[in-house]
Amino acid sequence: MLNQQIVLAARPHGMVKSGDMALHSAQVPNLQVGQLLVKNQFLSVDPAIRYWLNAGTTYIRGVEFDEPVRCFAAGEVVASRNDEYSVGQWVTGLLGAQEYAISDGVGLARCDPTDGPLSQHLGVLGMPGMTAYFGLLDKGQPQAGEVIFVSGAAGVVGTTVGQIAKIKGCRVIGSAGSDEKCRYLVEAGFDAAFNYKTEDTDAALKRLAPGGVHIYFDNVGGDTLDAALLNLARGARVVICGALSQYNESAYAGPKNYMKILTARGILTGLIVFDYAAQWPAAVRELAGWLREGKVSTREVIEPGLSSFPDALVKLYQGGTFGKLLVSV
Amino acid sequence: MLNQQIVLAARPHGMVKSGDMALHSAQVPNLQVGQLLVKNQFLSVDPAIRYWLNAGTTYIRGVEFDEPVRCFAAGEVVASRNDEYSVGQWVTGLLGAQEYAISDGVGLARCDPTDGPLSQHLGVLGMPGMTAYFGLLDKGQPQAGEVIFVSGAAGVVGTTVGQIAKIKGCRVIGSAGSDEKCRYLVEAGFDAAFNYKTEDTDAALKRLAPGGVHIYFDNVGGDTLDAALLNLARGARVVICGALSQYNESAYAGPKNYMKILTARGILTGLIVFDYAAQWPAAVRELAGWLREGKVSTREVIEPGLSSFPDALVKLYQGGTFGKLLVSV
Repeated sequence: MLNQQIVLAARPHGMVKSGDMALHSAQVPNLQVGQLLVKNQFLSVDPAIRYWLNAGTTYIRGVEFDEPVRCFAAGEVVASRNDEYSVGQWVTGLLGAQEYAISDGVGLARCDPTDGPLSQHLGVLGMPGMTAYFGLLDKGQPQAGEVIFVSGAAGVVGTTVGQIAKIKGCRVIGSAGSDEKCRYLVEAGFDAAFNYKTEDTDAALKRLAPGGVHIYFDNVGGDTLDAALLNLARGARVVICGALSQYNESAYAGPKNYMKILTARGILTGLIVFDYAAQWPAAVRELAGWLREGKVSTREVIEPGLSSFPDALVKLYQGGTFGKLLVSV
Repeated sequence: MLNQQIVLAARPHGMVKSGDMALHSAQVPNLQVGQLLVKNQFLSVDPAIRYWLNAGTTYIRGVEFDEPVRCFAAGEVVASRNDEYSVGQWVTGLLGAQEYAISDGVGLARCDPTDGPLSQHLGVLGMPGMTAYFGLLDKGQPQAGEVIFVSGAAGVVGTTVGQIAKIKGCRVIGSAGSDEKCRYLVEAGFDAAFNYKTEDTDAALKRLAPGGVHIYFDNVGGDTLDAALLNLARGARVVICGALSQYNESAYAGPKNYMKILTARGILTGLIVFDYAAQWPAAVRELAGWLREGKVSTREVIEPGLSSFPDALVKLYQGGTFGKLLVSV
């Protein structure tokens, strides 16, 4: 049986290009004992993919040439020689940009179809939702009445952070890169949103949060992080989740206003979502409940066909899309 | 009665120069009800003075022209129309670079002569000692067996941090800017010290703390902070106390490796020592006990005469001196 794959063709430098990836066909090998075969239905197009395409990183190895591009995917088990998985089950995991993936089950998550459609298990019910949930609730420790600022807010993580913060009684401000995204955030329940491309972030925060920001949830780093540091309320928590503005840069810009952490009597911290793996099932259940009640919502953009994956990844960094970006296989 | 003062003559740009200050004589005014007169005996030459000489800052106003340079001083009450202070008492506070200071008592600390000599109430028994004590114990939360790295370690804060960490059963590494300072640190009880001018900080930490650093106590910022971030142990606490390498710069360099806080599952925090004012007396008592037992020691450099203050301040930033730098009035 033939397996279509999107593989790494050239090591990207700076901004990733679609030509760094190529479509490739390979034979699906026979299953060994302990393995299962997943037919991928959705590929998740996430910021971290660019990071994994580097030659080597601190906590995960880089993707090799002619290897499928590493990404999360959701699919159905179509064959199994692993006692813990049976045909017909829904699973998600780092299954790669390909039609079929062989797995030994390690790192795979089983999805409960009653929680929501398969695609949502890659978004609000998957890693992005978990990142929002534990990043905000465990690292941010939101208290009712506090002000939360979320950058990159139109992504699944950002929108979900804002919506959970609303459930906890906070005032929520988001920033995004277009007026359309800002309108979407207000519809999604944010108290305010501003377009960082047309309004200076420091000025916007002074306008929208004159008493300062109690939690800054940082998806972007760079100038936005520096502006947020100028606007911390006393006791603020800065939760570093990502640095979308920096992933395509060879060296990160450090937050030059980091001494504001002291004057605010604050802390800067961050999260590695995999540390919470044992608590994921309970968090998925709570998020599924909020989805059903309409307190949390999600926006999906689905690009059709495996071959659309390289362009979708480029589009992600260009900021032209928002919500959860998926490729249907 | 004439009062000799060192006043601000020119707003410094970049590195402070002795010409930015001038010797000046003024009449000591008569005491109003509620005021007391202090005869300063020692002036404390501290890194923060440069910061106060800027036009305006976030949490304290800048020193004005012809105003005595703001600094901590220790002296004796020589006249009092304030019921809480009587003649002969020892006090410390922001009394300024001058022979005589008038105070309404706000912000003044009374010193107990049985705790140690007057000069030490500006050092290990004063603000630097308090900074070390609360920065390490409250913000750093040292556990026996952990590795502590202190930069700017030959200053009073740094040496005291290291000595308290030894009392708590930690392994202590310090960095300083000369071999002489490093020898002093080892004599003061540090397990190891390195000269950051002759050995790369990242290389030194990999050599001396191969398992990583659990607490980094940062007095200097800049490249040292970035190197420390590359060498954090899991769960590390980065305690920002100062940024000596940056005070004379117009814009601070941000820590470009700040994402290492995430991968280390660490936090970055800092301290404002005045927040602990209510707990100072108990901390002074504990430090005085450690001084008597020889577990904490201190090195003083005393420049003679009020007029030596400008040169002493310049010398502080040039790193030519170490220990507690004082001017005797």
